[in-house]
Amino acid sequence: MARSEQHSGELELIRRIRARANGGRGVVLGIGDDCALLRVRDGEEIAVTTDLSIEGRHFRLDWHEPEAVGHRTLARGLSDLAAMGARPVAAFVSLGLRSEVECAGAKEVASHASRKKRAMDGAQAEVRDEWVTRFYDGLLKLAREYETPLAGGDLAESPMTLADIVLVGAVPRGKALRRSGARAGDTIYVTGELGAAAAGLEKLSSQFKVRSSPNISRKRRDQPNSDDPLLRAHLYPQPRVAQGLWLLRKRAATAAIDLSDGLSTDLAHICQESGVAAEVDEVALPVAAGATLEQALHGGEDYELLFTAAEETRIPRAIAGVRVTRIGRMVRRRKQNPLVTLLTASGPRVLEARGWQHFS
Amino acid sequence: MARSEQHSGELELIRRIRARANGGRGVVLGIGDDCALLRVRDGEEIAVTTDLSIEGRHFRLDWHEPEAVGHRTLARGLSDLAAMGARPVAAFVSLGLRSEVECAGAKEVASHASRKKRAMDGAQAEVRDEWVTRFYDGLLKLAREYETPLAGGDLAESPMTLADIVLVGAVPRGKALRRSGARAGDTIYVTGELGAAAAGLEKLSSQFKVRSSPNISRKRRDQPNSDDPLLRAHLYPQPRVAQGLWLLRKRAATAAIDLSDGLSTDLAHICQESGVAAEVDEVALPVAAGATLEQALHGGEDYELLFTAAEETRIPRAIAGVRVTRIGRMVRRRKQNPLVTLLTASGPRVLEARGWQHFS
Repeated sequence: MARSEQHSGELELIRRIRARANGGRGVVLGIGDDCALLRVRDGEEIAVTTDLSIEGRHFRLDWHEPEAVGHRTLARGLSDLAAMGARPVAAFVSLGLRSEVECAGAKEVASHASRKKRAMDGAQAEVRDEWVTRFYDGLLKLAREYETPLAGGDLAESPMTLADIVLVGAVPRGKALRRSGARAGDTIYVTGELGAAAAGLEKLSSQFKVRSSPNISRKRRDQPNSDDPLLRAHLYPQPRVAQGLWLLRKRAATAAIDLSDGLSTDLAHICQESGVAAEVDEVALPVAAGATLEQALHGGEDYELLFTAAEETRIPRAIAGVRVTRIGRMVRRRKQNPLVTLLTASGPRVLEARGWQHFS
Repeated sequence: MARSEQHSGELELIRRIRARANGGRGVVLGIGDDCALLRVRDGEEIAVTTDLSIEGRHFRLDWHEPEAVGHRTLARGLSDLAAMGARPVAAFVSLGLRSEVECAGAKEVASHASRKKRAMDGAQAEVRDEWVTRFYDGLLKLAREYETPLAGGDLAESPMTLADIVLVGAVPRGKALRRSGARAGDTIYVTGELGAAAAGLEKLSSQFKVRSSPNISRKRRDQPNSDDPLLRAHLYPQPRVAQGLWLLRKRAATAAIDLSDGLSTDLAHICQESGVAAEVDEVALPVAAGATLEQALHGGEDYELLFTAAEETRIPRAIAGVRVTRIGRMVRRRKQNPLVTLLTASGPRVLEARGWQHFS
């Protein structure tokens, strides 16, 4: 739990987070004790997922506005719950914070010399506090939309910014959607559209490559225009919690996973865990407007659901307002055949798992 | 959950961790899906705690052998469960790993120049893998002793080593020990002895100050002698899980906290949350052999339990084999009086909260 380490700044931050975070049906006791206490219904299992987001690898302070970092941090966790068909109960965030933070849309900070100072001066503290406030703005807005109370976390000084998100959910015993239930003959479906997040990231990256020559890198940068649907898909993805709950309630899916690493990688996970292979129809893929086929196949962070269903199961064209597309079928695994095959107009080809590489 | 990011090294690491981590009564589904699935008994609440440990702040790669980092990471979380009287159900570890790791007892690595290379070469990968293996050796040994299965986590490359631990526990509904239940007139108790971890840290620090002049800093360093009881208290603290469970089962405590930040700070937390003040008898404090009074009062990371009990409650001299000492009493809070008063031979003095500063 958030512990005091006698930095009055940290204590004050914890106080402010605590004031904003309390409440929520499943949370008996939130921030402020050694543990949070949560309650689920009798007959429910607990789903737990943790995801580490690290500056430079999962986000960049100069590219991602703090609200987007907060949103994306929570969205990653919610998406894992969605993939199991779990209802969110509570979220926890462990935050590692640099003394000085230079971020998109925030004030200009600290020279290299003053960065070396251990003590945080007033201006640095102000910038850091603004970053943290806006991080929580983004995170808590999404948390409210998905009725997921923030029940705790930890806060520590760190050489670079990082956030570890923990999501706790609940699911009826023995009913969770798993990666391992797909059978040969099942149909493969995907929610929403694919490739938008990767296309948005490329757009973001090119905007900053144009703008950030060394001599202007210390100036305040404008935020990218987040009305752009591709940028929004990357910066503010929507986890498919309602769709996961629907699939579980209707017992419609035999297996499910969220598309965090990209279709080619995540479908391979289902194949591996289920002991089957898959065929994807290229022509059927719901490629997002503005995205390429490559981005739809390998782009990460779409956070759509990929699921399989028995051939005879009727899956509607949309679940809870989000389009659902049939993209292929599960087949028997044969030694000489690839795990995932892409069926194209010019014949079948191996679809290698080439998940997204973050910001390496 | 541990996700593949197409680094074959990471995938292999995840595979090995998964092979070692599976199993445990409350874990329905462990590492390998979008979420872990846990089961608690009907009528139980779920206790959740997260603690972030960061290189340079909570541990140092040159001072702490990897087994100790793993042990301490888990011990921090188990101690939070102990403070609520919760039984451990499962642990999750998110690990941020540097490409190259230089650690006590491990092979010598990478020049500064090669550190700048993005790609990890074979020797670096070997050193990192040895560090990770030994980290899990330490963590999983303690996990076995406390019957706490490792049910998941995340793994990411990071500019410095870090570990975020999540502990999930279970506690009968409405019965958890909290910080907020102490009343004026209650007696204050502490398990075990105080100050040993801080004294051990000082010893460790002085050993390394002697040894590490710049010109030998790149040589292999010997491990500190961990048969030394003070060093052991710092490197391998024992969380008081059995004692917390006993207090809950007997309904003996009105409030409890674990001594992670030091007596002066943690007792102040109980006072704040309970709306009372405290008096501590200096002469009664169970100062560990080799530790100073200052270390017993303000030294962090003893991971003993501090608890309060109604005056009429009989508390035994030892709980589950660990000594219990009566160290003071809770009193009414008065505006002009300090939160915590130390009663000494020369009269009362204010005991200011001066929790431990980690490695700042």
